[in-house]
Amino acid sequence: RERLEALRANKWFEAFVIFVIVMSALLIGARTYDETSRYEQMLRWLDHGITLFFLAEILIRMAAERRLRDFFRNGWNVFDFVIVVASLIPIDDSEMVLLARLLRVFRVLRLVSLIPELRVLMGALLKAIPRMGYVVLLMFIIFYIYGAVGSFLFHEVDAGLWGNISIAMLTLFQVATFESWATAVLYPTMEHYPWAWIYFLSFIFLNAFVFLNMMIGIVLEVMQK
Amino acid sequence: RERLEALRANKWFEAFVIFVIVMSALLIGARTYDETSRYEQMLRWLDHGITLFFLAEILIRMAAERRLRDFFRNGWNVFDFVIVVASLIPIDDSEMVLLARLLRVFRVLRLVSLIPELRVLMGALLKAIPRMGYVVLLMFIIFYIYGAVGSFLFHEVDAGLWGNISIAMLTLFQVATFESWATAVLYPTMEHYPWAWIYFLSFIFLNAFVFLNMMIGIVLEVMQK
Amino acid sequence: RERLEALRANKWFEAFVIFVIVMSALLIGARTYDETSRYEQMLRWLDHGITLFFLAEILIRMAAERRLRDFFRNGWNVFDFVIVVASLIPIDDSEMVLLARLLRVFRVLRLVSLIPELRVLMGALLKAIPRMGYVVLLMFIIFYIYGAVGSFLFHEVDAGLWGNISIAMLTLFQVATFESWATAVLYPTMEHYPWAWIYFLSFIFLNAFVFLNMMIGIVLEVMQK
Amino acid sequence: RERLEALRANKWFEAFVIFVIVMSALLIGARTYDETSRYEQMLRWLDHGITLFFLAEILIRMAAERRLRDFFRNGWNVFDFVIVVASLIPIDDSEMVLLARLLRVFRVLRLVSLIPELRVLMGALLKAIPRMGYVVLLMFIIFYIYGAVGSFLFHEVDAGLWGNISIAMLTLFQVATFESWATAVLYPTMEHYPWAWIYFLSFIFLNAFVFLNMMIGIVLEVMQK
Ligand code: NA
Ligand code: NA
Repeated sequence: RERLEALRANKWFEAFVIFVIVMSALLIGARTYDETSRYEQMLRWLDHGITLFFLAEILIRMAAERRLRDFFRNGWNVFDFVIVVASLIPIDDSEMVLLARLLRVFRVLRLVSLIPELRVLMGALLKAIPRMGYVVLLMFIIFYIYGAVGSFLFHEVDAGLWGNISIAMLTLFQVATFESWATAVLYPTMEHYPWAWIYFLSFIFLNAFVFLNMMIGIVLEVMQK
Repeated sequence: RERLEALRANKWFEAFVIFVIVMSALLIGARTYDETSRYEQMLRWLDHGITLFFLAEILIRMAAERRLRDFFRNGWNVFDFVIVVASLIPIDDSEMVLLARLLRVFRVLRLVSLIPELRVLMGALLKAIPRMGYVVLLMFIIFYIYGAVGSFLFHEVDAGLWGNISIAMLTLFQVATFESWATAVLYPTMEHYPWAWIYFLSFIFLNAFVFLNMMIGIVLEVMQK
Repeated sequence: RERLEALRANKWFEAFVIFVIVMSALLIGARTYDETSRYEQMLRWLDHGITLFFLAEILIRMAAERRLRDFFRNGWNVFDFVIVVASLIPIDDSEMVLLARLLRVFRVLRLVSLIPELRVLMGALLKAIPRMGYVVLLMFIIFYIYGAVGSFLFHEVDAGLWGNISIAMLTLFQVATFESWATAVLYPTMEHYPWAWIYFLSFIFLNAFVFLNMMIGIVLEVMQK
Repeated sequence: RERLEALRANKWFEAFVIFVIVMSALLIGARTYDETSRYEQMLRWLDHGITLFFLAEILIRMAAERRLRDFFRNGWNVFDFVIVVASLIPIDDSEMVLLARLLRVFRVLRLVSLIPELRVLMGALLKAIPRMGYVVLLMFIIFYIYGAVGSFLFHEVDAGLWGNISIAMLTLFQVATFESWATAVLYPTMEHYPWAWIYFLSFIFLNAFVFLNMMIGIVLEVMQK
């Protein structure tokens, strides 16, 4: 067990694991090029090799732990385990090929679990989520209300933009990112409802206001620690 | 009275009120889908049920107070009261249907008055408004001056964008959000007035400058507390 | 002199001056509507009235000072004086009408010189300009270099976007605001130069980087005071 | 040597060097105008003059140092040296004209090496790069994963946007800047994959989230110093 632990902690072994993950990422990228379809057989072998290496690596890390339980206590280990095991499931059905490919894409995320700095960064990001919880809820309420109102008012003008509350909320998200909000959304609507600018401007100002205050709130909260 | 007060403070009762508000929100959303028109009767009964429940709930909260005056001292209670009473007014006129629907939408805002964290957030937002007062006034003056100048200069180029000061200010707001400001506003204008870029660039820089300083000002002001 | 000074400091007099400035602003706005052309005579009389009132008001303020020199020591007074005197010059030439109108627009800026809070805000803004001097210079050098390179490389692709260094810099400003930078600038260019994305992405990253650091720099500098 | 050192430190000499650099920048800009082609001979002579002056100036600065080694210890000196020497290489091949022109453009960067404030600013910018290293890596991983997934899913919809992982990542960069992301990317994709909005909204939220936290992280890190 101690030799496995030494191996796991070995700098060269770690570097090699990172190398294999980067290789697996490049492999995934290569597959998106049509030109690579004639190397299909080679790519498939490489893929099998990487799958086996990842299996071996995770087994080494599991065996290196004093108790198996300790291994699964670390969230990142669970994440790695799921990724590796899921890619072992043989997929014959051609319709599942897409799923298999997507699963292989998630292997790239193992870079995050392997590089300590990225792990710290990711931890900080995850810890910041609850801090934003209620602002996101308030934002959702604003979008929901404006979505309902927009759908009631502008339903007839353009069903593609305001057909129902889901479509209306997507349109409002487009407006919130300022993407063609005037030329493609506001001006066509104003041709039928000249007062529509009140709806849009109040939405934009409300958004900007909540967003600005959220930023200030976060900065203050973080600074107090 | 004390039993009503106990009921009002009951966690399960509160959760049920939130559940009914969410239900009423979903009902509003469902109405925006054309497919739901055949469940019209059922939706109407649900709506009546929710209206009655809200009435009951607000009566409980009013009765739970020592004096009725205390109830109306809280701004959120007044807000809830107006929403509930307004939705009791029977609307026969088919032209008022839209108004009735909009009124029901505002029921969703009762989520804000019910969830303490959202109430705190909303209070913080409302308190931040006066802080922005004079910057908003300065921004309005900038928009007004540029709107007048833009309307004088570019009136002939495109009346749809610069026809009068209101239209011009809306166009300037579009420019301020960078929405198609170059392809749809600047370049067509420059075909007639090659020097128009001075007008637009000075406006954008002035805007960016005031906005940046406002942000810094707010951060500083907030930090001093 | 003391009675004039008392008049100048009178709250009601100040409020009336603000009222007249707002009136003059509304007058300017009204002129941009075609419908108002039949009230032309009335608008002109109102305009003359306002001009005379401003003249009277500035004479009162000048007379209220102990020495005339003191009046001109204040930058805002000089600003007011220039605005008022310039609008006294009779304009017969019909070609000068535009200039006269623009000059009247600047009267609205007197709101800034009159409301103390806006004057403070404006002073803070003016003080912030030198702080940004060298960043603006660096930005200009980046734009100039990219403008020259873009003009050399893409001149043939689209002379309307890259015809010479001035046009190229305007196009780069459009890119910096993310306005149709991909659909209208990058993709058409990449059809001839597939590597053009390096030019655009490096420009955007450089911009974002300098801008981000400028913001941080300003926040730090302001906080140290 | 001391006289050369005195010359180098002379304010007027420095100002003249800046003047020549600005001249060389204007020369580069002038060349991008078609109208200047008839002054070609004059521009070429000016260019030769500037090249010679830069050579003389750098020789003076080298000779003014106690030891030549000291000169090359300063990164800015090496930068100046490379720029000057490279522009001395005679270019006969007409195909190399573009390269020669680009090289001359970099002379403008000598402004940065000459003006102390810009040198300080540039140093601060360069120092800030490593601080952003891991966030940029995380961003790249996010783009790579979404690029691969997007290329797998939407390959058939629009090969011009999702043809392979490189094209997909460029499209995602366009989406990240909110440039026509809804009208030109999301909506056409949703016609074939109605659930595509999950892909785009998750990408935008993830981006915004990482970006926001990066900003906060940098502000905190900088403030601790
Ligand atoms: Na945009
Ligand atoms: Na756009």
